[in-house]
Amino acid sequence: MTQSAQEPAFRLPDDTTALKVAVLGAGSWGTTFAKVLADSARHRGDDGTQITLWARREAVAQEITQEHRNSQYLPEIELPSLLTATSDLNEAVRDAHVVVVAVPAQQVRATLLEVKDALDPAVVVVSLVKGLERGTDARMSELCAEVLELPPERFAVVSGPNLALEIAREEPTATVIASAHEPTAALLVSRTSAPYFRPYTNTDVPGAEIGGIVKNVIALAVGICDGQGLGDNSKASVITRGLTETTRLAARLGANAETLSGLAGLGDLVATCASPLSRNRSAGRLLGQGLTTAEVSEQMSQTAEGIKSVSAVVDLARRVGVEMPISEAVNAVVNGQLDVRSIAGLLLARDLKPEGPQ
Amino acid sequence: MTQSAQEPAFRLPDDTTALKVAVLGAGSWGTTFAKVLADSARHRGDDGTQITLWARREAVAQEITQEHRNSQYLPEIELPSLLTATSDLNEAVRDAHVVVVAVPAQQVRATLLEVKDALDPAVVVVSLVKGLERGTDARMSELCAEVLELPPERFAVVSGPNLALEIAREEPTATVIASAHEPTAALLVSRTSAPYFRPYTNTDVPGAEIGGIVKNVIALAVGICDGQGLGDNSKASVITRGLTETTRLAARLGANAETLSGLAGLGDLVATCASPLSRNRSAGRLLGQGLTTAEVSEQMSQTAEGIKSVSAVVDLARRVGVEMPISEAVNAVVNGQLDVRSIAGLLLARDLKPEGPQ
Repeated sequence: MTQSAQEPAFRLPDDTTALKVAVLGAGSWGTTFAKVLADSARHRGDDGTQITLWARREAVAQEITQEHRNSQYLPEIELPSLLTATSDLNEAVRDAHVVVVAVPAQQVRATLLEVKDALDPAVVVVSLVKGLERGTDARMSELCAEVLELPPERFAVVSGPNLALEIAREEPTATVIASAHEPTAALLVSRTSAPYFRPYTNTDVPGAEIGGIVKNVIALAVGICDGQGLGDNSKASVITRGLTETTRLAARLGANAETLSGLAGLGDLVATCASPLSRNRSAGRLLGQGLTTAEVSEQMSQTAEGIKSVSAVVDLARRVGVEMPISEAVNAVVNGQLDVRSIAGLLLARDLKPEGPQ
Repeated sequence: MTQSAQEPAFRLPDDTTALKVAVLGAGSWGTTFAKVLADSARHRGDDGTQITLWARREAVAQEITQEHRNSQYLPEIELPSLLTATSDLNEAVRDAHVVVVAVPAQQVRATLLEVKDALDPAVVVVSLVKGLERGTDARMSELCAEVLELPPERFAVVSGPNLALEIAREEPTATVIASAHEPTAALLVSRTSAPYFRPYTNTDVPGAEIGGIVKNVIALAVGICDGQGLGDNSKASVITRGLTETTRLAARLGANAETLSGLAGLGDLVATCASPLSRNRSAGRLLGQGLTTAEVSEQMSQTAEGIKSVSAVVDLARRVGVEMPISEAVNAVVNGQLDVRSIAGLLLARDLKPEGPQ
């Protein structure tokens, strides 16, 4: 799998390199991850690192650079002065050793196409994206490989129990940085470790990606249960069965089941489902109260990635022949094909049978 | 493992038998499980079933029989009129086909010794207990085998995401009923299924027992995090690593890892850690705020099973050579050997290394 074992296609920046990092997307997670990079550099006493955040809107970029705030997405947080922002995408990525992608999943292809020619030939791309591209069902690793012709050793994904606002508040958090090429993950671990942020390396890219993608769908299911007034027993069953179907899909795509039992699977799912901060759970709650998908989107300021990705998840699962009853039920609710009042029965009443593998 | 494969040691009651069931212990879970049995019988149109709840205190027994209430543990709930209660232990178990044990783990041995001679020779014992006996580190299956000379096909354990008050309110709940002898589990599934209660059979007794026991310890850890003001990212990491160490211990004792990924492992853990109703999480929160174990016990009306069992869990893990860092940290806090302020570092800072098997 790892090409560099045969012939190193590129040289990773070493410990002495002053990294230039571009973070594409100034939503809550992109902005927070840029803060983590800056805090990690400061903690290491590295004052050569440059971190540039790309914001689609010029006003947001100016606020970040001049006032060290992103008042829409992280209103209480003072950002490090090391962070600058621009609304010029090509300027953001110019000469960057590392490009972090933090735009919504459905905008990744267009964003990559726009920056492709400006990228350094040895650039490492890091995905913070937790969704599938609709139409192609592509994971972000696949999209980068296709659009940028990026070899696996120059791609990594970050996934774990990472509610952005908690990290921005510097509350202790662990995560997984996965790359098929372990030294790539290790480089990123060393450049993102901070007193409040503890990344672990992993080489299972599909496991980390699928964990992050499907948890948004399961969080919608848990939110729907909330909206329907179901209790913690029911929600725990949905989380348990949801992780089982996630693991089935991931394993079919070559992932290691242990990744799904770890921080990027169970950890991410539990944090999302526990938190009042989760957009997906909030969106699910509104669906559970009987709102349509259009009404939910109107009420929410930021994308609930699960609503965008659920049809692609279901499509992918059918294509590779994996049963995902909870994702199917969520998809039917999102599409308006299933009355939300029938979901409790659907989620709990299936197969009064032995537990365990199918 | 299953003796009946060679020579049936007893005949299970069949579908036409009007069961006599004794439930020993009128705390919230024992009382609720008795209500489930009664509701299941009513739902099946079975009016021959007799269910007797044993309460230590005569006043509680009288209130249940005469007023159909258990005002101390389930204040809002009206109990089925089919349920009667007694404070006479021998009367409760006389001629019972099934005896359900729902007393605190440290009282099980004495209770079993007291009823031993009054038990029907073919009785099936069902454990609702989620703890280990201190001193012997015995699980309830082991204690029943030792004290009652009970063969494995006459023992079952119930474990899952089963917050008693939610079940008493008839909120939809799934669970696992595990017996080494599958027909024993199936009999109990048929006699406990109710519109709001959905049991699944399993044959992995040690898996179901260990899941239920250690989750109380992990819930204490999550509560301690709460008390220390840590967020959902941290707590999700503790839950993830807690389930990993639980699975390691269970596997060492012969359990199937899948049981721990199911309702009796992950499901039970997530429900307990999510719920404001959990005694163990509440006890952990008080410890996390700096109270001593003695002060916590004074403040709480019902046993926090994790506080009683954690030393036995740690003892058992050391004896069989399994590392359980989270349980060790909780044990040290409960014993007063570890300052609770150092727990965040201990829980998250271990091994900045690849994720996965040790």
